[in-house]
Amino acid sequence: MSSSVWVTPGWGKFSVDNPAAVLYGAGDLRFEDRPEPAVGPGDVVVAVEAVGVCGSDVHYFEHGRIGQYVVQAPMIIGHEAAGTIVEVGDGVDRARIGQLVALEPGVPDFSCEQCLAGRYNLCRNIRFFATPPVDGAMVRRLTTVASFAHPAPVRLTAEQAAMAEPVSVGVWACRKAAVRLGDRVLVTGAGPIGLLAAQVARAAGAREVTVTDTNAFRIAVARDLGFAARHATDAASGEVDVLLECSGAAAALSSGLAQLAPAGRAVLVGMGAETVSIEVPLIQNRELTLTGVFRYAQCYPTALDLISTGKVDVGPVITHRFPLDEAEAAMTISRRDPRALKAVVNPGG
Amino acid sequence: MSSSVWVTPGWGKFSVDNPAAVLYGAGDLRFEDRPEPAVGPGDVVVAVEAVGVCGSDVHYFEHGRIGQYVVQAPMIIGHEAAGTIVEVGDGVDRARIGQLVALEPGVPDFSCEQCLAGRYNLCRNIRFFATPPVDGAMVRRLTTVASFAHPAPVRLTAEQAAMAEPVSVGVWACRKAAVRLGDRVLVTGAGPIGLLAAQVARAAGAREVTVTDTNAFRIAVARDLGFAARHATDAASGEVDVLLECSGAAAALSSGLAQLAPAGRAVLVGMGAETVSIEVPLIQNRELTLTGVFRYAQCYPTALDLISTGKVDVGPVITHRFPLDEAEAAMTISRRDPRALKAVVNPGG
Amino acid sequence: MSSSVWVTPGWGKFSVDNPAAVLYGAGDLRFEDRPEPAVGPGDVVVAVEAVGVCGSDVHYFEHGRIGQYVVQAPMIIGHEAAGTIVEVGDGVDRARIGQLVALEPGVPDFSCEQCLAGRYNLCRNIRFFATPPVDGAMVRRLTTVASFAHPAPVRLTAEQAAMAEPVSVGVWACRKAAVRLGDRVLVTGAGPIGLLAAQVARAAGAREVTVTDTNAFRIAVARDLGFAARHATDAASGEVDVLLECSGAAAALSSGLAQLAPAGRAVLVGMGAETVSIEVPLIQNRELTLTGVFRYAQCYPTALDLISTGKVDVGPVITHRFPLDEAEAAMTISRRDPRALKAVVNPGG
Amino acid sequence: MSSSVWVTPGWGKFSVDNPAAVLYGAGDLRFEDRPEPAVGPGDVVVAVEAVGVCGSDVHYFEHGRIGQYVVQAPMIIGHEAAGTIVEVGDGVDRARIGQLVALEPGVPDFSCEQCLAGRYNLCRNIRFFATPPVDGAMVRRLTTVASFAHPAPVRLTAEQAAMAEPVSVGVWACRKAAVRLGDRVLVTGAGPIGLLAAQVARAAGAREVTVTDTNAFRIAVARDLGFAARHATDAASGEVDVLLECSGAAAALSSGLAQLAPAGRAVLVGMGAETVSIEVPLIQNRELTLTGVFRYAQCYPTALDLISTGKVDVGPVITHRFPLDEAEAAMTISRRDPRALKAVVNPGG
Repeated sequence: MSSSVWVTPGWGKFSVDNPAAVLYGAGDLRFEDRPEPAVGPGDVVVAVEAVGVCGSDVHYFEHGRIGQYVVQAPMIIGHEAAGTIVEVGDGVDRARIGQLVALEPGVPDFSCEQCLAGRYNLCRNIRFFATPPVDGAMVRRLTTVASFAHPAPVRLTAEQAAMAEPVSVGVWACRKAAVRLGDRVLVTGAGPIGLLAAQVARAAGAREVTVTDTNAFRIAVARDLGFAARHATDAASGEVDVLLECSGAAAALSSGLAQLAPAGRAVLVGMGAETVSIEVPLIQNRELTLTGVFRYAQCYPTALDLISTGKVDVGPVITHRFPLDEAEAAMTISRRDPRALKAVVNPGG
Repeated sequence: MSSSVWVTPGWGKFSVDNPAAVLYGAGDLRFEDRPEPAVGPGDVVVAVEAVGVCGSDVHYFEHGRIGQYVVQAPMIIGHEAAGTIVEVGDGVDRARIGQLVALEPGVPDFSCEQCLAGRYNLCRNIRFFATPPVDGAMVRRLTTVASFAHPAPVRLTAEQAAMAEPVSVGVWACRKAAVRLGDRVLVTGAGPIGLLAAQVARAAGAREVTVTDTNAFRIAVARDLGFAARHATDAASGEVDVLLECSGAAAALSSGLAQLAPAGRAVLVGMGAETVSIEVPLIQNRELTLTGVFRYAQCYPTALDLISTGKVDVGPVITHRFPLDEAEAAMTISRRDPRALKAVVNPGG
Repeated sequence: MSSSVWVTPGWGKFSVDNPAAVLYGAGDLRFEDRPEPAVGPGDVVVAVEAVGVCGSDVHYFEHGRIGQYVVQAPMIIGHEAAGTIVEVGDGVDRARIGQLVALEPGVPDFSCEQCLAGRYNLCRNIRFFATPPVDGAMVRRLTTVASFAHPAPVRLTAEQAAMAEPVSVGVWACRKAAVRLGDRVLVTGAGPIGLLAAQVARAAGAREVTVTDTNAFRIAVARDLGFAARHATDAASGEVDVLLECSGAAAALSSGLAQLAPAGRAVLVGMGAETVSIEVPLIQNRELTLTGVFRYAQCYPTALDLISTGKVDVGPVITHRFPLDEAEAAMTISRRDPRALKAVVNPGG
Repeated sequence: MSSSVWVTPGWGKFSVDNPAAVLYGAGDLRFEDRPEPAVGPGDVVVAVEAVGVCGSDVHYFEHGRIGQYVVQAPMIIGHEAAGTIVEVGDGVDRARIGQLVALEPGVPDFSCEQCLAGRYNLCRNIRFFATPPVDGAMVRRLTTVASFAHPAPVRLTAEQAAMAEPVSVGVWACRKAAVRLGDRVLVTGAGPIGLLAAQVARAAGAREVTVTDTNAFRIAVARDLGFAARHATDAASGEVDVLLECSGAAAALSSGLAQLAPAGRAVLVGMGAETVSIEVPLIQNRELTLTGVFRYAQCYPTALDLISTGKVDVGPVITHRFPLDEAEAAMTISRRDPRALKAVVNPGG
């Protein structure tokens, strides 16, 4: 992979008005100035203060694509963002200026069959930050739809608010799995999503939450968060009602399904294996249900509340912080530091 | 496969009191006299008049086992049965004597966690006709629990009432798939189960029901029943909301899943492929749900009503009829006649 | 009630470009010319050919209000409409010109919490035909959002397509009641909504549908449609799983609830009694569920399909037809003719 | 009300083998010896150590009846019980002797339609402790079905285990209301059931739980448990998603329903008003759902877990304790002490 090239190496933070981390293709991340964002009716301009780096960002950086989505034109990276409203368009309450907001990154068309059915995450015309060709959030200022800029509860930091994105993934996974009071839940994969989803499941009243991984450091983090955590290949302790597969590993799905009790529910959260092998008699004899999640819908308020009440602690998940001009370092930290979980970039710093 | 041996070849219908078709192992089906069934409190004795032959019966006959279930001791075959109550035990209304009943073949323990949760089909202690070591129904008279001998609506024949078993599979599959008014349904596999499940889906208000198979005769039967039917490898006509996979073929599942609309639901009904390969991005991007069915629970009254109102026509599915002493011919008819769908044996004939 | 005054009595059909039936207040319906409708991006202009008269239209005509909704400015009446697209705005396929469409009368804001949750019928900013201050559909030409002008299946008449509105009420009621295969359903009230809801319930697989009313003619119509129909005060025949209360009468709700089986579901569809008295022990001891419906969401395609397949026959419900300039007669027919069910006005005739 | 008469006044604790508190009719509670309980197959004999006094026990004591249930023969009172297994019948693991168990008081027939549907609480043949003519649990030793004697987690006291009964009411109410992560919940009535249900709702992930009552002491207890608590007549603070009506007061239901957000859910838990008046437009315009609970099904394990993890603190609810021979004092304490919430009787003390 070629090293990235800064278009204006060495320039200081204040020499440009609206700097952004822009991906030109695999391994080609550039630091650029972008035009001041326009603000239309119903919009807000947000000064971005924190952008979490997600596995998908890293994948785009490393491969220039994810499946059918290919970086064909320069695209600002990043979609886990929070910041402060600095300007509002017509129809938006001016009192929102100064408000810390978490930015829900996917804005649907609001009018298709999926949107009308309450599944706006499945809208075929959704515009999602940092999914080609839509620009992402690793930029000093951006414009978005006011209703998708969710007010952060008091005392939340921008960094915590940005974590509403991966926490929403956990909320949605638990909703799809119908995690409820008294359930026994297995979370396979103790990366950021797994660690957050496990906390969401606990907040939803799960009686037992077990977390597995193959990485000793991650297992230790899970234990510190109070979970029964074990190595993925260790013998399972008993049956569970729900499997949240967050590793993307085919083996984790297989062993997780085998642990499910009759009428158990499994949700495919992690991405990785393109195809997985399923044992038909297992699905049939126990009447297991398997589904997958694609982002989330209507989860941000709940995610922000979970973070603000401490039911979900995002602290242990954020392991590294970078200023905007070190975005490439943020993209590569997980290859360099085995203890890296999530890096956060501050475009306003 | 060795030819079966009749223990008492040549004896007439009246020389034994309670003749039965008994499986001793692979290819070894014998015609035997059995003791008069005892009747305890809450029981009924039923004179069996029709027993449908299911693919599982044929599988036991051909292989002596299905997965973990092995024929280790002589076992009466058959589980799709109907007949007339001839005797009742204590606590059962004597007015039921003479009543035509369809026999629900799986009697659970009524007290385990699964039973208490309304999932008695998943009871680990269930005693199911013709699943080793439990005797089946291809016998002149048998005893069962009165509440699992479901009264047939007036004017139903024993043969029609016996079909409540495979129709119940269709009812349960539609219930698991939550087939509802306006749904587009794809049924892959036009064997008896597929043909009945498709009719159940139509009765549940499905807007479109498409049936696929690889066998031209079965496709024709599906067309005669009023379905859009096509060869399994023909191009799909459009997206569907529900997939009822009734063929047991891995390819049918793959192509069926690919046809599902966002938030579509698939149910694995057919048995065949032990493992199937699932595309993770397909499940995730459309948030498909996949589940399987294991028999059924609380479906018999609905199944009987569907048959009696003609919403489900079992006629085209029953292609062959045999007396009890030709039970082996009934087991092997599908290998000899490509137009065979379901054989029915009459133990009372 | 004062007789309505025609602003231009005696003028012919062709003397105005866009005639409309406009309600000025209680008893004051006028026949007026309206400006040619403007067409914006995403809009269609529809030449209206059939508008059903609903009880709410009659209520507005007689009282000038329904609860909090008061006719304070002249308002075109009518919301059960169908017609032909005659012009399309930017972004709408020009091939739709000439298409017969059923007009879903409530256009939500598409962006509030209720809309995003798939409950656009509960949108607080919804603009619904003929609900003050929004104009209705009893006009020669109107503009609406293209996606809410639902294509009618081939061979449907405009009149049948217009009935997609009350049929949608029935679809939504059945969906809220989760009517499913094998249910026993009681429909109280055999007015247009009850007669259509009963047919929808039957199409959804209900095993038994019983209809009650106090009007002998309506009971007869229900019988002609194939239902078990009886006088509302006759003894109930047995327990039911679902109650669709379509009469608005408190007594119908009370007796209907008493007929519900354990875990039965009741839906308040009819409007009439402002308050009803509920027996707490009945709700608790049988764990009944009671809910109400407010219009519908995502029902038009299903309603149109039901009409086009004949599963719902709207014929017996349409008892009277009027040209536009006799709109007042359409409003008052139910007071003059005890056999009136629904009048349809043709603004294009 | 006449004072109760002890059949053997003055006898000591050890002069009888199996003393019980027996209700003969309104106000007539007697202290009697009862035969040693027999133990059949599948049974356990339990030495009862704690029995909570429920409002229904008090109602039977004061009125001799609840609705259709009339005390016509002497009946042991009490149904919130826990104790230690001292003997087991055939088929029950002998290792259970010595186990502390919470006794689920309603044993269904396990075989009716309701039982098979997973709604065994609605079984018409259920035998429920202290519901005429079935004896209750305020007795030194009793026999029950082993599977309804739920093992208490380690370190639970008998008193805590006995509270699994009212906690199960809260679990069931939350399940019926589908309380889920992020919901805003209003609990009207801060008696024992309300205080426990509120804690269950919080454990199920409710974002906000507000408790109302008219009694200042109870409001204070709710506050001490960490809830936003207010007087029932104080202005509501905002809309809620769920109403758990635990007071039995018609006014609480009316004001609670008015606070529900669109698509809100209400559950009638409290008993009191026989009939309540419901505003039809409120139910319809917001599409509210109203249901009631009758006891509970499959809640004991979850209830015990909630108590043992401290998510539900039963401590503040237990305000008084009595030995068996002061059972009448336990029945009347709530009339004498305004701060009484729940009394517990120890039949083994």
